[in-house]
Amino acid sequence: MKDAYLVINAGSSSIKFSLYFGNGDSKPVLKAKGQVEGINVAPHFIAQAVDGTVLAEQRWPADSNLVHQDLLKHLIDWVENHLDGARLVAAGHRVVHGGPRWSAPARITDELLDELESLVPLAPLHQPHNLAPIRALAVVHPGLVQVACFDTAFHRTNPKVAETFALPRELTEEGVRRYGFHGLSYEFIARRFKEIDPVRAAGKVVVCHLGSGASMCAIDNGRSVASTMGFTALDGLPMGTRTGTLDAGVVLYLLQQKGMNAAEIETLLYKKSGLLGVSGISNDMRVLLESNDPHAAEAVDLFCYRIRRELGSLAGAMGGLDALIFTAGIGEHSAPVRAMVCEGAGWLGIELDPAANAAHADKITTPASRLPVYVIPTDEEMMIAKHTRAVLAG
Amino acid sequence: MKDAYLVINAGSSSIKFSLYFGNGDSKPVLKAKGQVEGINVAPHFIAQAVDGTVLAEQRWPADSNLVHQDLLKHLIDWVENHLDGARLVAAGHRVVHGGPRWSAPARITDELLDELESLVPLAPLHQPHNLAPIRALAVVHPGLVQVACFDTAFHRTNPKVAETFALPRELTEEGVRRYGFHGLSYEFIARRFKEIDPVRAAGKVVVCHLGSGASMCAIDNGRSVASTMGFTALDGLPMGTRTGTLDAGVVLYLLQQKGMNAAEIETLLYKKSGLLGVSGISNDMRVLLESNDPHAAEAVDLFCYRIRRELGSLAGAMGGLDALIFTAGIGEHSAPVRAMVCEGAGWLGIELDPAANAAHADKITTPASRLPVYVIPTDEEMMIAKHTRAVLAG
Repeated sequence: MKDAYLVINAGSSSIKFSLYFGNGDSKPVLKAKGQVEGINVAPHFIAQAVDGTVLAEQRWPADSNLVHQDLLKHLIDWVENHLDGARLVAAGHRVVHGGPRWSAPARITDELLDELESLVPLAPLHQPHNLAPIRALAVVHPGLVQVACFDTAFHRTNPKVAETFALPRELTEEGVRRYGFHGLSYEFIARRFKEIDPVRAAGKVVVCHLGSGASMCAIDNGRSVASTMGFTALDGLPMGTRTGTLDAGVVLYLLQQKGMNAAEIETLLYKKSGLLGVSGISNDMRVLLESNDPHAAEAVDLFCYRIRRELGSLAGAMGGLDALIFTAGIGEHSAPVRAMVCEGAGWLGIELDPAANAAHADKITTPASRLPVYVIPTDEEMMIAKHTRAVLAG
Repeated sequence: MKDAYLVINAGSSSIKFSLYFGNGDSKPVLKAKGQVEGINVAPHFIAQAVDGTVLAEQRWPADSNLVHQDLLKHLIDWVENHLDGARLVAAGHRVVHGGPRWSAPARITDELLDELESLVPLAPLHQPHNLAPIRALAVVHPGLVQVACFDTAFHRTNPKVAETFALPRELTEEGVRRYGFHGLSYEFIARRFKEIDPVRAAGKVVVCHLGSGASMCAIDNGRSVASTMGFTALDGLPMGTRTGTLDAGVVLYLLQQKGMNAAEIETLLYKKSGLLGVSGISNDMRVLLESNDPHAAEAVDLFCYRIRRELGSLAGAMGGLDALIFTAGIGEHSAPVRAMVCEGAGWLGIELDPAANAAHADKITTPASRLPVYVIPTDEEMMIAKHTRAVLAG
């Protein structure tokens, strides 16, 4: 009998899922995926086959009052009716914050859940939504093994100097340090790149994970040594609606001179800034690239400029650079963004091949380019499936 | 009759002054310098000749209730009695913030003073102390030409993309942007470097101004194109007691989870962080380098690591790097700090000459080093004197 693994990636208003089949050492195989979106508004469930065929779909009215647990029950019921004779052996969850302690995925226990709950203040906008389906699943499917896969874990190989803010030691020791995020994506890319180019993968690599959340990671011989995201997922590159790196003096100014409170500033920096704030038009890179508005161009320029700055900074963290990799939504699909980053990075030895870039080729630099640049699709769900199977195997 | 120029650099508890003589196009010549320190505590006035000889000294008791204006009167009286027949024609002041408008020094008028007063919210810890002696001097020496020299002015050549935070446009337009500071120092160094190595000075240069306040600046063909300090003087490198770059999410955490208020956070980030906060020992690099405490070593490591990161970032801003320059207290005098920065920057073509570095030579790289590294003493007062004379000449 085949084993089935359910992968859950839950946010504030949606629960994404993927169903994998697999036995023993074979790579998990994706069988179906889907999501419940519009939670707390008008929920909408959809499940699709790997080729995109819609396998099931359901909508509920806005006044249906369905909570996470109800919708998760619906999702699980659907999964259990589509196991094709396989046996659901475990669920793997993306959990944004594993704190200073967790450098690897972990089987969920009541104690671990309490510990992860205590990290909510470190990721107030993400962590509660990651934990809710774990609790809900324990109710609707008691006894099912659940595994937490942390977005911070891959970065726990960072040297202390990369993790430390220049704050009083007490704060650092209580956990106010750089954690880094998007670790499941970086881990997937690091393993994949080892298959593609094992020589350079043993060297110094920068990966740009550019999605609506965006960050960059310096990976030296397969291990994360620095990244652009910090204590929270607010730091580093500008994102769809997040500001990225900001002078802390600006926050003091907003408090002291503009009379804003913490909640207002949080909304400003997380929801109204980034590409949306600068362009005044959209948080969507595709919309901005198609716009003729000069403010849209400013937002795109700023995004690419900050990537070039962080590329130099991360090379500085490693003392060199052997390869650059683009991944995630924008990284995989936006040739203009990749071109703008690479055109300003000739000093690092990058010579872009415009045709390869336009075609989203695996490698987008010329053969003569001293520094090769790759486009590698990421797959965080596959990484979670593999981790879940590995934890189950002990 | 010779002209005399008084240069004033005023902080919260001290007023530093330098007296220059000079006529026509000749370089101003320093005749004396000194300071009033311990203002609001137990004031202490000292004046010294260029060779360090004490020319005058006076102490007042803690209960003397002397305010800025009284002490400035004392300072001016001393200066006027030591003019050696020269005529005091102008006073030049270091003013930390010139806002978005001022890209050059300016003769002070009532209107300008009001405008500079309106910038106090952008530099609450520095600007008021810079403006106080301007007002005081207008009272004790009416009619004297006064010139404001801005620490932000040199950076007004930065491209918009370097100045912009990814915040909503309204905030950027109201002035919440990166200004950069230490501009008088960078301007002095840029001019001096043009005399030392005109070819490389026409290229891409990074200057590290490392004092108790510390920042770095990317200078392309003599013009500032980016720097590490932002909206305030809190951003960028860790400093003696300032944290430097910090995830804005940390400020939200301090507000929301630690229950701190804005004033407490300001004190924490400006006065208790940086080298002092990390080491738990001292804000003084000399003390840390002599200490055997591992926490002192951590603070030094972090300082040098952040410099290496920013060096890559600033090279990224320019798309290359032709020279690196160290200046200011730590930059001019700390061979171990320079060595630690350069040893991690071999990827940029730096090959340190340890003997030259230990001797604080003008150039501290080997002849074979692809990237030359220089140590150039800065002189902000001389820059102010030159600016003041130029403004006077119209």
